[in-house]
Amino acid sequence: MTPHPDPRAGAAVKAADRAHVFHSWSAQGLIDPLAVAGAEGSYFWDYDGNRYLDFTSGLVYTNIGYQHPKVVAAIQEQAGKLTTFAPAFAVEARSEAARLIAERTPGDLDKIFFTNGGAEAVENAIRMARLHTGRPKVLSTYRSYHGGTATAVNLTGDPRRWASDNGTSGVVHFWGPFLYRSPFYSETEQQECERALQHLEDTIAFEGPATIAAIILETIPGTAGIMTPPPGYLAGVREICDRYGIVFVLDEVMAGFGRTGAWFAADHFGVVPDLLTFAKGVNSGYVPLGGVAISGAVAATFENRPYPGGLTYSGHPLACAAAVATINVMAQEKVVEHAAHIGETVLGPGLRELAERHPSVGEVRGTGVFWALDLVKDRETREPLVPYNASGAANAPMAAFAAACKKNGLWPFVNMNRTHAVPPCNVTEAEAKEGLAALDVALSLADEHTV
Amino acid sequence: MTPHPDPRAGAAVKAADRAHVFHSWSAQGLIDPLAVAGAEGSYFWDYDGNRYLDFTSGLVYTNIGYQHPKVVAAIQEQAGKLTTFAPAFAVEARSEAARLIAERTPGDLDKIFFTNGGAEAVENAIRMARLHTGRPKVLSTYRSYHGGTATAVNLTGDPRRWASDNGTSGVVHFWGPFLYRSPFYSETEQQECERALQHLEDTIAFEGPATIAAIILETIPGTAGIMTPPPGYLAGVREICDRYGIVFVLDEVMAGFGRTGAWFAADHFGVVPDLLTFAKGVNSGYVPLGGVAISGAVAATFENRPYPGGLTYSGHPLACAAAVATINVMAQEKVVEHAAHIGETVLGPGLRELAERHPSVGEVRGTGVFWALDLVKDRETREPLVPYNASGAANAPMAAFAAACKKNGLWPFVNMNRTHAVPPCNVTEAEAKEGLAALDVALSLADEHTV
Repeated sequence: MTPHPDPRAGAAVKAADRAHVFHSWSAQGLIDPLAVAGAEGSYFWDYDGNRYLDFTSGLVYTNIGYQHPKVVAAIQEQAGKLTTFAPAFAVEARSEAARLIAERTPGDLDKIFFTNGGAEAVENAIRMARLHTGRPKVLSTYRSYHGGTATAVNLTGDPRRWASDNGTSGVVHFWGPFLYRSPFYSETEQQECERALQHLEDTIAFEGPATIAAIILETIPGTAGIMTPPPGYLAGVREICDRYGIVFVLDEVMAGFGRTGAWFAADHFGVVPDLLTFAKGVNSGYVPLGGVAISGAVAATFENRPYPGGLTYSGHPLACAAAVATINVMAQEKVVEHAAHIGETVLGPGLRELAERHPSVGEVRGTGVFWALDLVKDRETREPLVPYNASGAANAPMAAFAAACKKNGLWPFVNMNRTHAVPPCNVTEAEAKEGLAALDVALSLADEHTV
Repeated sequence: MTPHPDPRAGAAVKAADRAHVFHSWSAQGLIDPLAVAGAEGSYFWDYDGNRYLDFTSGLVYTNIGYQHPKVVAAIQEQAGKLTTFAPAFAVEARSEAARLIAERTPGDLDKIFFTNGGAEAVENAIRMARLHTGRPKVLSTYRSYHGGTATAVNLTGDPRRWASDNGTSGVVHFWGPFLYRSPFYSETEQQECERALQHLEDTIAFEGPATIAAIILETIPGTAGIMTPPPGYLAGVREICDRYGIVFVLDEVMAGFGRTGAWFAADHFGVVPDLLTFAKGVNSGYVPLGGVAISGAVAATFENRPYPGGLTYSGHPLACAAAVATINVMAQEKVVEHAAHIGETVLGPGLRELAERHPSVGEVRGTGVFWALDLVKDRETREPLVPYNASGAANAPMAAFAAACKKNGLWPFVNMNRTHAVPPCNVTEAEAKEGLAALDVALSLADEHTV
């Protein structure tokens, strides 16, 4: 784990990148991608000898950290054996990955449809729900992200949807519970829960229950702000779905596989959805993989009637072998329990301690290795440190915060007026504390923008 | 390459599959997936000691065959070095894959946006075209396949679209050229070309040129029937696109990377699209990867304005390393030239010879390792051997044909009334001849259903 500085190699990588790589979610001429030379565990390094503690887990997906030797070995072994095979066949790694996932998903979510990532998982979950119910509409929340393909991005409740929000039909957005910025003027968790459920009931009543195929929620919304729903909310949505014959989809692409200190975030609430989407943590993104875990009732719809969806790499053997190894490593090394423990003993207390000292921290929210600091100009009014979807000068306070983190060896997750502390699930206590110390320094800069 | 029979292991793989794997495009209770034990080159084998010559290349994607040792080694090496890293960074394998692809794509398609597969490539190409032009509609053809996510499947012109064809807007289907079953009552290639272009012109005129963002075509439509467009057609579409400011998208997910005996099918026609989608052959599907090659003009639109699309595994290092190795292997081993040669000297002549002897063969179409036999009841009327989208008893002649191939050690590609001969690009002459011999036997069964 020693960075070897090699600026010339880094310059070549960067030059080819700038000449030929078109990057996600970016103005191509305005970005300056860091050339990364290597990574291990919770760290990565560039070609100039700078090492960073990764408090982003990539895009919140390297739940077992970088280059876990057992998972790397499993990928190498499967590559030598059978790296790819078409989806219509039974293949050992595919069968075993499906079995291990089904063993861990809640309730009777026992059939696994594999995709390449989260967006396709959501696409297929919605297709299943529409065909299962014969209804057209899907309800999702503002403050959510569900992926970049047409259906998934139309369901998304953040600005990444806007440019692709043409010709959409059958998608309705409503508001989920979020006490700190309550859409319902609530003053307690219980009130927020009741009012959010009433809002959903009212929305369903006015949309027409018989028109609604599915409600899709991130169990704990991720990039939108890590808003843990109040006790009773998800059970209430489950009851509403049952009452109206609506398919309940939980999107655990980000929250699943240990991130929240449980195998699935749904486990915290004792709620079983009809469909559960996953990706990222399932194999820590070592090989692209996602999927849908399907209940018995929904699977039965496609028992004698063809499921009209699919993809060339569904159940890709190399990706599935990485999932098998990752899940086994997580079980053997008690990675999920560790994530819960580090959240309870280090990240939670440490972030709350920072909040006490830094007036820019409006709220600390989270669980496991899934934490958000909601940064504000004013704790009283809760005005965000930067406006919603700010860029350029308006976003300068957050840009300065991020730069300060990097200067102190921490690669931060920043979205709008928030920073998320989302290291790998197996981050050590010392690493977590190192991250907290770097956040401490950077928050002092944010404090300068408070009233 | 010796199959080791192990029926008990196969039974276990199959049992876990049936319990937990939900398969693409299938009625889950009506399928009986073959458990596959291994594969090498152009062959795969099951757990009972049966070996099959794969005339499908998986789903037309293992262009270098199974388990090419150099590509396997490259995957193993990259796994040990840096198996994954987030898309916002410059990473060596990502830069190098983009460079090698851009070097081979036609014209100025020099920026590469990476996805996990073909569907996402199409999703993003269409998003780029809509934002580049500010127009809503996209034209695609009947007899086409573009992928399984919402936009991609709505563009598709085959029955796989139907169940997902709800709430679509902005997609218009037209008819492409296909002399053997001419939508335009043409009698010559030249007439078909002229009439197909006129049909497109008329469709554009009535849809409104200023409403059309893009025309997307498979350069040579694949699963829909391998209909090579007549000389002049693609150049004519290019000219129409230029005249109306429409983005021309060529979908080379199946036809690209050697399949047609050229790096890209567009090379046969001297046509440069504005966007080109790829997947499959780019790394023979050894690790999921797809992408869009972007022209200078379209890329410029997103130089100072963010491109509003992306995905967690864009430019996945392991997938990109597999692409680098695959492209280098294809160049070093002259795989593309070999595909052209085998098409000209073995597959083309061999299939035409079968057509002479088998009245069920209505037409032989193709190039390289990309061939279709259009099977008919009656050569005069050209009535297909089975009706469009037939299943069950109506499809019995094709089912019997497929079963006969398998009995003779050939795994055939069958779609509706066609069989496609689509082995790996590096299939040997002996293997190609072995496949032709098995087709010969199976076609005798098809002949029984002719008038």
